[in-house]
Amino acid sequence: MFIDLNCDMGEGFGPYRLGDDQAMLASVTSANLACGFHAGDPLVMDQTIALCAAAGVAVGAHPGYADRRGFGRRPVSAPPAEVRADLIYQIGALAALAKARGLGLTHVKPHGALYNRAAVDEALAGALIEAVAACGPGLVLVCLAGPAGQMIRRLARQAGLKVAAEFFADRGYLSDGRLAPRDAPGALVDRPELAEERCLELLTNGRVRCLDGAWLALEAQTICLHGDGPAALATAKLLGPALRQAGVALRPLAELAR
Amino acid sequence: MFIDLNCDMGEGFGPYRLGDDQAMLASVTSANLACGFHAGDPLVMDQTIALCAAAGVAVGAHPGYADRRGFGRRPVSAPPAEVRADLIYQIGALAALAKARGLGLTHVKPHGALYNRAAVDEALAGALIEAVAACGPGLVLVCLAGPAGQMIRRLARQAGLKVAAEFFADRGYLSDGRLAPRDAPGALVDRPELAEERCLELLTNGRVRCLDGAWLALEAQTICLHGDGPAALATAKLLGPALRQAGVALRPLAELAR
Amino acid sequence: MFIDLNCDMGEGFGPYRLGDDQAMLASVTSANLACGFHAGDPLVMDQTIALCAAAGVAVGAHPGYADRRGFGRRPVSAPPAEVRADLIYQIGALAALAKARGLGLTHVKPHGALYNRAAVDEALAGALIEAVAACGPGLVLVCLAGPAGQMIRRLARQAGLKVAAEFFADRGYLSDGRLAPRDAPGALVDRPELAEERCLELLTNGRVRCLDGAWLALEAQTICLHGDGPAALATAKLLGPALRQAGVALRPLAELAR
Amino acid sequence: MFIDLNCDMGEGFGPYRLGDDQAMLASVTSANLACGFHAGDPLVMDQTIALCAAAGVAVGAHPGYADRRGFGRRPVSAPPAEVRADLIYQIGALAALAKARGLGLTHVKPHGALYNRAAVDEALAGALIEAVAACGPGLVLVCLAGPAGQMIRRLARQAGLKVAAEFFADRGYLSDGRLAPRDAPGALVDRPELAEERCLELLTNGRVRCLDGAWLALEAQTICLHGDGPAALATAKLLGPALRQAGVALRPLAELAR
Repeated sequence: MFIDLNCDMGEGFGPYRLGDDQAMLASVTSANLACGFHAGDPLVMDQTIALCAAAGVAVGAHPGYADRRGFGRRPVSAPPAEVRADLIYQIGALAALAKARGLGLTHVKPHGALYNRAAVDEALAGALIEAVAACGPGLVLVCLAGPAGQMIRRLARQAGLKVAAEFFADRGYLSDGRLAPRDAPGALVDRPELAEERCLELLTNGRVRCLDGAWLALEAQTICLHGDGPAALATAKLLGPALRQAGVALRPLAELAR
Repeated sequence: MFIDLNCDMGEGFGPYRLGDDQAMLASVTSANLACGFHAGDPLVMDQTIALCAAAGVAVGAHPGYADRRGFGRRPVSAPPAEVRADLIYQIGALAALAKARGLGLTHVKPHGALYNRAAVDEALAGALIEAVAACGPGLVLVCLAGPAGQMIRRLARQAGLKVAAEFFADRGYLSDGRLAPRDAPGALVDRPELAEERCLELLTNGRVRCLDGAWLALEAQTICLHGDGPAALATAKLLGPALRQAGVALRPLAELAR
Repeated sequence: MFIDLNCDMGEGFGPYRLGDDQAMLASVTSANLACGFHAGDPLVMDQTIALCAAAGVAVGAHPGYADRRGFGRRPVSAPPAEVRADLIYQIGALAALAKARGLGLTHVKPHGALYNRAAVDEALAGALIEAVAACGPGLVLVCLAGPAGQMIRRLARQAGLKVAAEFFADRGYLSDGRLAPRDAPGALVDRPELAEERCLELLTNGRVRCLDGAWLALEAQTICLHGDGPAALATAKLLGPALRQAGVALRPLAELAR
Repeated sequence: MFIDLNCDMGEGFGPYRLGDDQAMLASVTSANLACGFHAGDPLVMDQTIALCAAAGVAVGAHPGYADRRGFGRRPVSAPPAEVRADLIYQIGALAALAKARGLGLTHVKPHGALYNRAAVDEALAGALIEAVAACGPGLVLVCLAGPAGQMIRRLARQAGLKVAAEFFADRGYLSDGRLAPRDAPGALVDRPELAEERCLELLTNGRVRCLDGAWLALEAQTICLHGDGPAALATAKLLGPALRQAGVALRPLAELAR
């Protein structure tokens, strides 16, 4: 069995830093780099690309709403044409920086509110898919695993994109498959052992226990470890050996997407 | 004889607009599109690319310092590595938006303070040249014509880039070949007839009369008409017939660069 | 009978300008100055204060969401504590610039999405009222006239603020008293004669004809002429003489608020 | 003998944080709060004011250039009228937030490049002094101690402002009294013991040893501990007992300024 571990990276800006990208790179197979709208700036992007290249980790785009202060977690009611242009802009910018260091992008994972809204809003999903396809038909789109990601995964495949379904190791799930809002109790899994256990449950039994106690069936090709979460690094360190012991091998998501 | 006419475009932002891009496109052969740092935003860029495509005008990048309020006209003392990353970011973003509409970029012309400083600062010129080369070896770099652009033109050609030397129809010149600062008397040529006369003098006799009255020898492959200047549109309309009468044909700068 | 005419002003930013503030100042009694979040910047604010001082027009704050690109017309789902802090920040900044030119602020009118949402969201209305009260208990809060502004007007008065109910000369109304969304047909009244007629109908008969044809009863102390609308200036010029002829005198809203 | 200890605070922005303000507040008598241009945002400002109020630490404004990415450490060649307006805007915004929590501002200390340039550029110093005076004649202006701050201290006093001369515990000095550029060797004092020793030398013998080994005579009313420096917190903890032992008592700078 195979799985990809992905992590959001390059979320610094000017004098600020978030997360320990260098340490996370030892544990993951795919990195999602902020593209300068909700986080990141060109120099941070360039430096993070260099870190990924040195670590042999696949680089993808992590574009978001243009809202640094809200860290891209607040929906912006922009028309689809604006979202499409913003996404092509961000992906193209990162792709050029990666190319300048000899790398190609392998995937696109929208950030925060954009990720969540594109899973429920067909017009927004369409703008996202159009942008990804325009930036390179080989780019894999990372989408929520389970029922809540069904619409966007279907639209993406209809448009000819490959899709990687994503499980969140450190986020609580609602029984309809959506992530619990970040301020709900239990929304953030901060014990590394619990995060590890959830990953093994997913890989072994294809399911996650939701916040209301029900089991939800999920199939995923990639697990997100969230670089800025308090327990991300500890979970990442626990997870590698646990996966090996369970007979699960790591592969970059581009190899697992369909 | 051949010349390119170029114009800075796409300088709007959100609710704001500058210049009449649609009208200028009837007169020019190359457009330099702001890339969202000193002016422009992704939607404005996308719409301006569509206008250029419809008008059959060549599209180039017009990247600048990240200073909307100062319109990129104030130097930012950023280290070369930051400037290089900012430029690749901007050019890559525009290139992706152009590609999504079936166009390739033909050239890069830095904006404002970046244009002026890169002509006198070798480290900055190096960052610029490295960025342009990384985004595509076929991209032409637009540089100041005459003695003040000599260093950067030489460095660009040494790095394998083609160069288009640029004359400013609406800017006063110092006798060392630099543009007079925008707040100096005579720095902005606002009479279309004078701008036209200067262009013909350049093309016929290869020279411009400087603010101090001296003649300066200049050779140029492209003439900038500055979209936001008060007389840009009037000059553009005068210039076409005048050039034809003088036996000068218009060609996009990518065909004239060397 | 008395009425105030107000206009949004100072909506430029860096190299950009919107509307003809100087011309509008000849016709209005109160000016609402953008405060640097959705539009305006400190220098524009300072210059606009100077224009108001010269014209003898009362100065108020026009704070908005921190979204220049969307011009404050898109809701930002910020928590009330953040909105409160952003509003005190903007009002305090404008008040200090006004004080430096010897003026005091007379009123606060929130802009765009903030204005509309505060009329329907009690928590947001509370944040707004708390901010205005903190900046000076004498500041008048400008609120939507009619049934759609009832909640916020009541809360404001309960908190000890004076309120000026506002009618929009150039915006279509829904029959529940809300403004029609800007992209709805008829949402923008662009014929100056119609705008004038609506103002007279309001002042004479205390009502406006809604987009669905129904009459809505409204009582207002101030009429907004929207500086950036296409017909604002023409309406402003028509309205003065028409009001005089109808026996209506102009007074700044601070004198009419209750 | 008396001295004030000051610290730059509230330098977070949206999801980002810099320094441990809560911990520093236990050791200092004056806090300089970023005002949302180079760092800080209204909510961070409001929360930091609350922390200062709880700790009984005096609040001052720490305005800077509008350059978050460069953290206000890069000069912006803005005209004095723009700098003046930007400063009144920032100080007024902070003053309003402080007033809403029952506090008044006691001082203004410009940040980074603005601090350094105002010490050498008379026009800029004039803009700064005019802004501070406009925001309240009782506000103390914090200026560099020693010969490099002489011009601005003189101009400020001529304009009727009180001045607090400032010593930097953690910055290397050039023999002309200027701070060494941050990237020069020895520019940042990162050993708390050395920082402590320098403070005692200043208070006891009125001098600092410069990077070239020479002694420079300095008289100061306040010592800056730089909240974001690596050793700021450790220095702050060492310094309190050491000062007490040396017979030096802490007082907020507003009491010591002249």
